Amino acid sequence: MRDNWPCDTRMDNGMTITTEHSTHPDLDFNDEIYRELNRICASLSQQCSTYQPEFRTCLDAAFQALRGGKLIRPRMLLGLYNTLVDDDIEVKLNTVLQVAVALELLHFSLLVHDDVIDGDLYRRGKLNFIGQILMHRTPESFAQIQRDPEHLDWAQSNGLLMGNLFLAATHQIFARLDLPHHQRVRLLDLLNHTINDTIVGEFLDVGLSSKAISPNMDIALEMSRLKTATYTFELPMRAAAILAELPQEIETKIGEIGTNLGIAYQLQDDYLSTFGDAAEHGKDAFSDLREGKETTIIAFARDTAKWTDIQDNFGSADLSTSQAERIQHLLIQCGAKNHSLNAISDHLNICRSMIKTLSPQVDPKAQNLLLKQVEQLASRKS
Amino acid sequence: MRDNWPCDTRMDNGMTITTEHSTHPDLDFNDEIYRELNRICASLSQQCSTYQPEFRTCLDAAFQALRGGKLIRPRMLLGLYNTLVDDDIEVKLNTVLQVAVALELLHFSLLVHDDVIDGDLYRRGKLNFIGQILMHRTPESFAQIQRDPEHLDWAQSNGLLMGNLFLAATHQIFARLDLPHHQRVRLLDLLNHTINDTIVGEFLDVGLSSKAISPNMDIALEMSRLKTATYTFELPMRAAAILAELPQEIETKIGEIGTNLGIAYQLQDDYLSTFGDAAEHGKDAFSDLREGKETTIIAFARDTAKWTDIQDNFGSADLSTSQAERIQHLLIQCGAKNHSLNAISDHLNICRSMIKTLSPQVDPKAQNLLLKQVEQLASRKS
Repeated sequence: MRDNWPCDTRMDNGMTITTEHSTHPDLDFNDEIYRELNRICASLSQQCSTYQPEFRTCLDAAFQALRGGKLIRPRMLLGLYNTLVDDDIEVKLNTVLQVAVALELLHFSLLVHDDVIDGDLYRRGKLNFIGQILMHRTPESFAQIQRDPEHLDWAQSNGLLMGNLFLAATHQIFARLDLPHHQRVRLLDLLNHTINDTIVGEFLDVGLSSKAISPNMDIALEMSRLKTATYTFELPMRAAAILAELPQEIETKIGEIGTNLGIAYQLQDDYLSTFGDAAEHGKDAFSDLREGKETTIIAFARDTAKWTDIQDNFGSADLSTSQAERIQHLLIQCGAKNHSLNAISDHLNICRSMIKTLSPQVDPKAQNLLLKQVEQLASRKS
Repeated sequence: MRDNWPCDTRMDNGMTITTEHSTHPDLDFNDEIYRELNRICASLSQQCSTYQPEFRTCLDAAFQALRGGKLIRPRMLLGLYNTLVDDDIEVKLNTVLQVAVALELLHFSLLVHDDVIDGDLYRRGKLNFIGQILMHRTPESFAQIQRDPEHLDWAQSNGLLMGNLFLAATHQIFARLDLPHHQRVRLLDLLNHTINDTIVGEFLDVGLSSKAISPNMDIALEMSRLKTATYTFELPMRAAAILAELPQEIETKIGEIGTNLGIAYQLQDDYLSTFGDAAEHGKDAFSDLREGKETTIIAFARDTAKWTDIQDNFGSADLSTSQAERIQHLLIQCGAKNHSLNAISDHLNICRSMIKTLSPQVDPKAQNLLLKQVEQLASRKS
């Protein structure tokens, strides 16, 4: 039996995914990414064509979830790669696209496993993959079955298995890249490092929320770095550096810029969800306080005298607006708000300084792009 | 950052796993397999050395579970490979050992994810990995916490994450094998096919037990093939054929022999757990009937007139011995027992005939080994 992978054969069984995003010409590389995403999905479809029709339903729901993504990581990789190379972009674009789309498959795998672990059925207000599987089972009684352990177990098992399918697919794509051996091994090393980090990041996250691990600032920061910064920032940026054949020390520097950018992003996420304008960032106001989420803001407050007052209602599922506002006020008084703003600013300043040191080995276009990302992040409100 | 993988560097940080098995000289290739398993674990250890100590505990529990395995799949691969090649066995043994041990990592990953899905804390009467994590948390109150959702979620999340770590590690090993490109791609194709099959097999298993998928004989047989036969029999046997550089058509034939052997094994498992001597096979007598497991025996009985009598107590958690014996009796009367015995015998006969057709391309030593496995399976009582 010979399985078809797009990197082996230019197979396309005619299946095409069309999405609302692909009609936006202003989003960088969107058409190319969707074309490659279509090819990968067509390949997975073809590989699974002889299985039971019930599995088809599950696979189609996964494709649907996959195409709903914002493609942040593939676009970051392609955008940076594009500024790092001049002449040969056409030659290698197919390979770069394969890596870019593999990052989106990995992202889906991590999200769905995170939702399995947290028992979530929604993501940003919409049904997630697990929610879709439940909805497909009995749309008429969704409100009841979402609390039925048997139905929920089934939908979550679908999530675990699809996460595995896409985790394996990510590795298959990396393993088959049409690149010189040393370059493929550098990418495999990067993937390996990323998987280890995200696994430990998720481990710390679950450990903190289940109280198996004691919270403190170091752990909260480490969790942010491992769970989010590595795969969302370091991975696409280092992959671009490797694909552009930059030397190892430049790849490492770009990776460190990515890590700092990623930590700033996560610190900002903690800040916005605690002090930001809920109407702007779209998250339920105070949901982090209600869930008792061990953010960097809370980790700071734990070491202050105000903690005894904060802990009374922190993590209470029926936290009232006035109680939440009181916690907000205490967090400001104890210095957590200022500390958070300073920490974000520090990490962004590290990025700015490091970007300057990339000269002269890195094209000024790439430096400008990275600086632009830093400034976009500095001014983000949602 | 550069991660160390044993296939890249001959790294050994001094960590050694010793087990009771490795002192049994009569078990084929045990020393070699444990040496390679040690190297892989040492490499994973070293990669994870900078993470929090809590993760170390989890990793060590996984290594402990990993070394408790019976090494059936690595030994099958090495045993068959050894009969398929004559001269160059020393040259390639390291590569073959890497693949062999990768199969054990995959086995652990599949087992632990299966235990997450089923909510199991025990396997063959001993605490499994998830049970060990729970026990480590609060040994003094294990009886209580094993039903506490928060503790259980934590332990199961550990299971999901360790399953992912080992699934990724399996792929990393395959991706880095020091083999010619076409041979590595053949092995990657085989791994890809195996992962797809086992995912769909597990999907069908969960679907049947959660009643999301309607049971029938085709689904029950397909589930056995996909969930067990592919990765336990077809994978090690085809991997041996690829590593021995046999032509594609011989690899395919050996794979089909593996599939038939695997289905026979699973049919026999269903048979022994329903009609076998509990003292001999070590499983709880009637546990399949009590759990309402959709075996091939039950699938056959569903299509007979006796089913209305059987279904009354089938799947009842408090099934009495006399009720279970009545079901056994009804299963014999409706022909399910005979059908099962015939089906086992048919699949083993297919194996015997196919093994003969391997001449002259395959060494008689390999044919004899395969025939020996068929006869061992034919006479198995546990």
